[in-house]
Amino acid sequence: MRAVPRVVIVGAGFGGLQCARALRDEPVEVLLIDRHNYHLFTPLLYQVASCLLSPSEIAAPLRKVFRRARNVHFRLADVVGVDFAARTVQLSDGEAVHYDHLVLAAGSTTNYFGNDAIASRALGLKDLGEALQLRNHVLATLERATVAASIDVEQLLTFCIIGGGPTGVEYAGALAELARLVLPYEYPELRPSAVRIVLLEGGDRLLPTFRARLGEYARRELAHLGVDVRLGALVDTVDDDGVTLRGGDRIETATVVWTAGVRPSDITASAELEHDRRGRVEVDECLRVVGHPGVYAIGDGAAARDRDGTTLPMVSPPAMQAGRYVAAQITGRVRGPFRYRDKGTLATIGRRSAVGEVGPFSFTGLTGWLVWLVVHIYYLIGFENRLVVMFRWAWYYVRYDRPVRSLIAADPHRGSAAAGDRPV
Amino acid sequence: MRAVPRVVIVGAGFGGLQCARALRDEPVEVLLIDRHNYHLFTPLLYQVASCLLSPSEIAAPLRKVFRRARNVHFRLADVVGVDFAARTVQLSDGEAVHYDHLVLAAGSTTNYFGNDAIASRALGLKDLGEALQLRNHVLATLERATVAASIDVEQLLTFCIIGGGPTGVEYAGALAELARLVLPYEYPELRPSAVRIVLLEGGDRLLPTFRARLGEYARRELAHLGVDVRLGALVDTVDDDGVTLRGGDRIETATVVWTAGVRPSDITASAELEHDRRGRVEVDECLRVVGHPGVYAIGDGAAARDRDGTTLPMVSPPAMQAGRYVAAQITGRVRGPFRYRDKGTLATIGRRSAVGEVGPFSFTGLTGWLVWLVVHIYYLIGFENRLVVMFRWAWYYVRYDRPVRSLIAADPHRGSAAAGDRPV
Repeated sequence: MRAVPRVVIVGAGFGGLQCARALRDEPVEVLLIDRHNYHLFTPLLYQVASCLLSPSEIAAPLRKVFRRARNVHFRLADVVGVDFAARTVQLSDGEAVHYDHLVLAAGSTTNYFGNDAIASRALGLKDLGEALQLRNHVLATLERATVAASIDVEQLLTFCIIGGGPTGVEYAGALAELARLVLPYEYPELRPSAVRIVLLEGGDRLLPTFRARLGEYARRELAHLGVDVRLGALVDTVDDDGVTLRGGDRIETATVVWTAGVRPSDITASAELEHDRRGRVEVDECLRVVGHPGVYAIGDGAAARDRDGTTLPMVSPPAMQAGRYVAAQITGRVRGPFRYRDKGTLATIGRRSAVGEVGPFSFTGLTGWLVWLVVHIYYLIGFENRLVVMFRWAWYYVRYDRPVRSLIAADPHRGSAAAGDRPV
Repeated sequence: MRAVPRVVIVGAGFGGLQCARALRDEPVEVLLIDRHNYHLFTPLLYQVASCLLSPSEIAAPLRKVFRRARNVHFRLADVVGVDFAARTVQLSDGEAVHYDHLVLAAGSTTNYFGNDAIASRALGLKDLGEALQLRNHVLATLERATVAASIDVEQLLTFCIIGGGPTGVEYAGALAELARLVLPYEYPELRPSAVRIVLLEGGDRLLPTFRARLGEYARRELAHLGVDVRLGALVDTVDDDGVTLRGGDRIETATVVWTAGVRPSDITASAELEHDRRGRVEVDECLRVVGHPGVYAIGDGAAARDRDGTTLPMVSPPAMQAGRYVAAQITGRVRGPFRYRDKGTLATIGRRSAVGEVGPFSFTGLTGWLVWLVVHIYYLIGFENRLVVMFRWAWYYVRYDRPVRSLIAADPHRGSAAAGDRPV
């Protein structure tokens, strides 16, 4: 009855977006479902959390992205389940949407590894809500420190970041620069030297997915920015007043940022699917979900494997390539298995400093930073966002400033002084 | 004991900000208190609510504004009262702050005239939280309309704005343009002609503070944009499904925006002060609060009078001039009474259309719009905000776009599809 097959894509992250884009103007009807109305450029989230960018500068409204695509439709909804037998996706508003092809691209969320004490007290940095909450929390904490008793000031000015991967490293560097650039001039009540930023990593080096030399470079650069980097530091408990490490070390702090793990989104956890030990859906070499014809899984929620059998990392490049590959599968333009082409990885540490690796090459310092700039501007969605973000970066570079420093909440009864407390 | 007198300014709106700026480098110690950490450029709030500007573009962080002012300090706090006998200001955290001179500049808030039914159901447009809530509500309502039954679509696509002053007129025009520019291209599920924007004004013309010709021009221009302007329309009740007018007319709507009144902030209501019938603090011709030496009141919360005895309007120019005047009073640079110089008023209606009056002159259309542009860029606080806002406006002008269209809430558990409902 249906003239063209319907492709339902669950999630408009890097994988889902690329898949929908590649299906534009193809003889299929595409329904892209996300619980946000925007595509989020997650690699720059830490810049929102550190007062450099505005949320809208890294969020591309999905209806705008697809405004010229007549066969791509968008639906703002939470997906609560999939009926694989009936070939329908269940939405939280009760509706069931039929699919001929289903692409599960629901991404990942912060993983607290079941530790409720951490989950309830730590701040995540995985979506825009979390980034804004973290930004507001840091700004409110600085304000509280200006009027606190000296014993409390110490605790309020200690910021503890757990996890030495790219997010932890980038946020630690950005926070150190925020403190260095803004505090001496705008918080005369505070001693800039009283600010302590502690970065805890359980392993023996930072950036474990990069080569060792780069992790060591990042550690030195962060130390240079004044960050207290602790390797081999395993968190035992987090309570209202701070963090206790295994071995007994104690960090009194009002700010715990958790970047130490991600896990596939809940929708991926369906009991009807096979999962690897990290909860990612098992797929065959063509990214088809095992045992469910017409269903594909891509990105952080899928256990796609490289030629050597290792699963691909939970970062954006494999998701983007997989999205385009699945689109080609659906339209019959490829037959062979999915082959991931690793184009390299990058992480900034601060002003004029970044690390990266591309194939056999690795680079650091200014070179890395320039490559990082070009790559991130290129991959930002939307010409206008590129312009505004370039302007912000140029401004930040020339003026040593962090412009976006207002404590703003969407609820008129929050965001006032009274809301300066730790979010619950 | 104190080397220099301490001036406490309550509120960092137009009046408080100008007062603090004028006291920069003077032989006084200034403490500026606000419950937000930014100065808000309220005349552009409607552009945040209609997806054109980002919040940070009209919010200037106060510590940044005063970063070079050694004698101006900022305190993020809610003021809960003033002890005039002890010369202290009481803060919500329990602290009492001493003053030698006190400037009450606490501004105004939305006035629902004690009508709880309206207060609980209508959306205001007086601070950044309200503007964001309104933006998110409109975006969520459009999304809901794309999947609703046709009877509900009608209600969801009806937007009712109560109050025909500048805020109501500007927001009605901006919303009409948002619908016209975005809906046909990005919401194929909706018929653009199904959008209904109703502007209700109780009096017999729009913009009652402008001359009659301009109110009539605004009415014609809004009608041209498709806005259903109803004069002499008095609201009887607001319920969950819409608005009932006196006389029985009924508007079924999911969106009620209330711009029909402002009242002085609660802190101004102290029983120890004399008030006019609108709740504004009575001041003498030098803006001193009657009966309380050392205390001044300025802006929306003060009943400052013109030469002819009429109280000044609750808009920004009198507040700004009063702020500078009081600073000069405190430093002894003026002795005479406060004289308000009316430089005119402006309101935009849409792309290339605005009304304004300056002294004996009034203007409309493109001239008004260009004057409006220059004035608003000039008065925006912060060079960088001026650049970014100019860029946004140029972009909007050339591309017919409304760029800031992401549904974002600071709380990670809101802002998802499930939060699309009417705010409570």
